[in-house]
Amino acid sequence: MAYEDLIAEPCSIIRPLSVLGDRWTFMLVKEAFDGVRRFDQFRSRLGISRGRLADRLDRLVEEGVLQLAPYKEGGRSRNEYRLTEKGHDLYPVMLALREWGDRHMAPHGPPMYYRHAGCGGEVHAHVVCDVCGAEARAREVTPEPGPGMAPAA
Amino acid sequence: MAYEDLIAEPCSIIRPLSVLGDRWTFMLVKEAFDGVRRFDQFRSRLGISRGRLADRLDRLVEEGVLQLAPYKEGGRSRNEYRLTEKGHDLYPVMLALREWGDRHMAPHGPPMYYRHAGCGGEVHAHVVCDVCGAEARAREVTPEPGPGMAPAA
Repeated sequence: MAYEDLIAEPCSIIRPLSVLGDRWTFMLVKEAFDGVRRFDQFRSRLGISRGRLADRLDRLVEEGVLQLAPYKEGGRSRNEYRLTEKGHDLYPVMLALREWGDRHMAPHGPPMYYRHAGCGGEVHAHVVCDVCGAEARAREVTPEPGPGMAPAA
Repeated sequence: MAYEDLIAEPCSIIRPLSVLGDRWTFMLVKEAFDGVRRFDQFRSRLGISRGRLADRLDRLVEEGVLQLAPYKEGGRSRNEYRLTEKGHDLYPVMLALREWGDRHMAPHGPPMYYRHAGCGGEVHAHVVCDVCGAEARAREVTPEPGPGMAPAA
């Protein structure tokens, strides 16, 4: 299945992979959440070739995950890359990955804590039932077709 | 940054990408949650070459996300692939992707609803503060170093 076919799958888990299905892209988004905005910063943080980085950034701009914001440097006008609201909406994906990383890939404990401003609590990703409020495991969940399942006309 | 270097990053968001950082792998895990267990089923669902599929499945077994379970078919002994507990722990990542897909890539509504057994409510991924219980957005969260941040000896 090619990248461009993923978007046609009637599945909201698979479709985002047409945007994110590449480790560089996930890492770029993660760095953007850490406040990285400039091409050379992304490049030095990720150790990625200029061409590959430009390709991934362009794609994230095209998909509306990042937006260009002009700035001046040494008299030249350049663009930095900022998360859009659509990009910010990826935060739960990042935090869900981090739960798994902390649980299964952090033998010396969490590398980072994620603290809620104001109250100082830790934030965590959860899968919760809207009705009973319980944390739900995969085995307790049944997928059923919704309105977006209908075949394309 | 090569795959094998991701595991050395002091970040529980980046480390899991050493296991998952490939769209085929995400899709395999998603299919496994849908109950797909056999090589040929994975192959026909994903339209993936035998070699690439075998490679991704082997890696997921090696990483403890899937486990082999023998079965008989036409007198021959074969293996199917089942999610381990570590694999089941990826469910919040799947559901977090789905929230984003439903919000930004489902113009005709959700392709699937995810219902909680018993109560029939819908389950959703949330990022929640352990102390105040509020849903947290990225802008309200400050990462701070934890015990796993110390440089390797």
